[in-house]
Amino acid sequence: MKTYLECVPCLFRQALSASRWATEDAALQEEIMRQAIGHVSRSDFSRPPPFTAREIYRLVGKISRNHDCFKEIKHRSNELALGFYPELKRMVEESSDPVAFATRLAIAGNIIDFGANSDFRRDDIQRSIDEAMHVSLPEKVMERFRRAVSLAQHILYIGDNAGEIVFDKLLIEQLLPQSIIYAVRGFPVINDVTLVDAEETGLNSLVKVIDNGSDVPGIVLDQCSKAFAERYEQADLVIAKGQGNYETLNEEKKRIFFMMKVKCPVVANDVGCPVGSMVIKENRADQAG
Amino acid sequence: MKTYLECVPCLFRQALSASRWATEDAALQEEIMRQAIGHVSRSDFSRPPPFTAREIYRLVGKISRNHDCFKEIKHRSNELALGFYPELKRMVEESSDPVAFATRLAIAGNIIDFGANSDFRRDDIQRSIDEAMHVSLPEKVMERFRRAVSLAQHILYIGDNAGEIVFDKLLIEQLLPQSIIYAVRGFPVINDVTLVDAEETGLNSLVKVIDNGSDVPGIVLDQCSKAFAERYEQADLVIAKGQGNYETLNEEKKRIFFMMKVKCPVVANDVGCPVGSMVIKENRADQAG
Repeated sequence: MKTYLECVPCLFRQALSASRWATEDAALQEEIMRQAIGHVSRSDFSRPPPFTAREIYRLVGKISRNHDCFKEIKHRSNELALGFYPELKRMVEESSDPVAFATRLAIAGNIIDFGANSDFRRDDIQRSIDEAMHVSLPEKVMERFRRAVSLAQHILYIGDNAGEIVFDKLLIEQLLPQSIIYAVRGFPVINDVTLVDAEETGLNSLVKVIDNGSDVPGIVLDQCSKAFAERYEQADLVIAKGQGNYETLNEEKKRIFFMMKVKCPVVANDVGCPVGSMVIKENRADQAG
Repeated sequence: MKTYLECVPCLFRQALSASRWATEDAALQEEIMRQAIGHVSRSDFSRPPPFTAREIYRLVGKISRNHDCFKEIKHRSNELALGFYPELKRMVEESSDPVAFATRLAIAGNIIDFGANSDFRRDDIQRSIDEAMHVSLPEKVMERFRRAVSLAQHILYIGDNAGEIVFDKLLIEQLLPQSIIYAVRGFPVINDVTLVDAEETGLNSLVKVIDNGSDVPGIVLDQCSKAFAERYEQADLVIAKGQGNYETLNEEKKRIFFMMKVKCPVVANDVGCPVGSMVIKENRADQAG
């Protein structure tokens, strides 16, 4: 997905927010904003928003000298989500349709974003879980998803956020014993998952976890490591979580199921649903059988 | 008031919105955004936001070749507000405290902003009027305002938006026969009042109306005409409507009463009240008697 003009104010909103997470020094915050503005003025809008955002987050890290300003937030998000895990796992297992229920929960977990207030986040997660209990995903897409999983030789599951990774684990448990690799970002960027989060949540003892070698908050293939690119090529089914992965992979030819909470009007318009929706979407619906 | 970093995303939101009002050509919209970004990256953040915004609106006009893209909106806003006028005038005159009631209405009228949907705006104005019926402004400030009006030799009333000007008229009628000059912008910018609006609403047959010679959506004195600067100097009381005038005049030493609906977190923080508040605020409270 290209960078729309609507993304411009949002990129600067993100730059401001990240600069404040990274440093309390107002002069450095202003320097980050100045350089972010300069960068965006030169950026290629045909590239997806996370490609431009990556450069902004690099500036935040470089200028503030704080390259992982969401480290503590990510840790707390994982702890918080792990607190929900045992009960949710029991509910999934007792459900009449564990795959469908775990899919809804995996999407619900995508609500976790870098908020300041962990109490707010707890309520927010609880609301999202409650929604997952009652929402129904399109049965045709779910049928195609089940079939794709059962036929797949190599599933690549691309994670999005810390905390959310625990909800991914609930779904992955239901997709096993299929061959699944879980991919995380190569470097810290916003609250996106890295290897640290896979370790903290025990996902790495369930499936193989690889990093993509990149600090883009999405998957821009020409920015990823060769090792990741090979795994991506090899995969005959990709599950991609969250907007960043959608924005960067939605024009790919590979069979991908996107799962996300829609958080902005640009993606909502692209997907064709309201902001706030829980979405499972296949990018090759025309070729699906 | 300086330009805060929070203003940066908002400036680009305004740039995008105005570019879409001005032209349907996506290439021109992108060009406007590119040049706006470049401009903001070089701008002086110690200057108030309307000073930077002015340059953005100039770019919109120059690139789209549409220098008054809110012309129709302004006309419709005036018509809409004039529709409310007779009933409001009757209510003011029948009120137990016409000055206080008209002041609340003048502030309520500041809700009028450049929305697309006139039905929405009508409801919005009605809600704001309803609020004005019930809200109470701080009695001490109102007392100082009444006293300042009664003692003033030369009142300069600086308008803000089209439509809102009709609500200004209701207040001005209650302040007469004091000597009042009403000031408008020198050139079209957003939906700010110009001489056209004073004519459309008949304000120019009630008091003398002057323009400030500038296209800043606020009052940056070194950008105004000499004629306006003289009127400003001469005034011993200024009434300034709306955020743009507040952002540009709040550090002035002159006795000014600001009246506005607070519309953004930055001004809310500066004024010390929640977004949405109806505010009358004196900038020389320490020296007031």
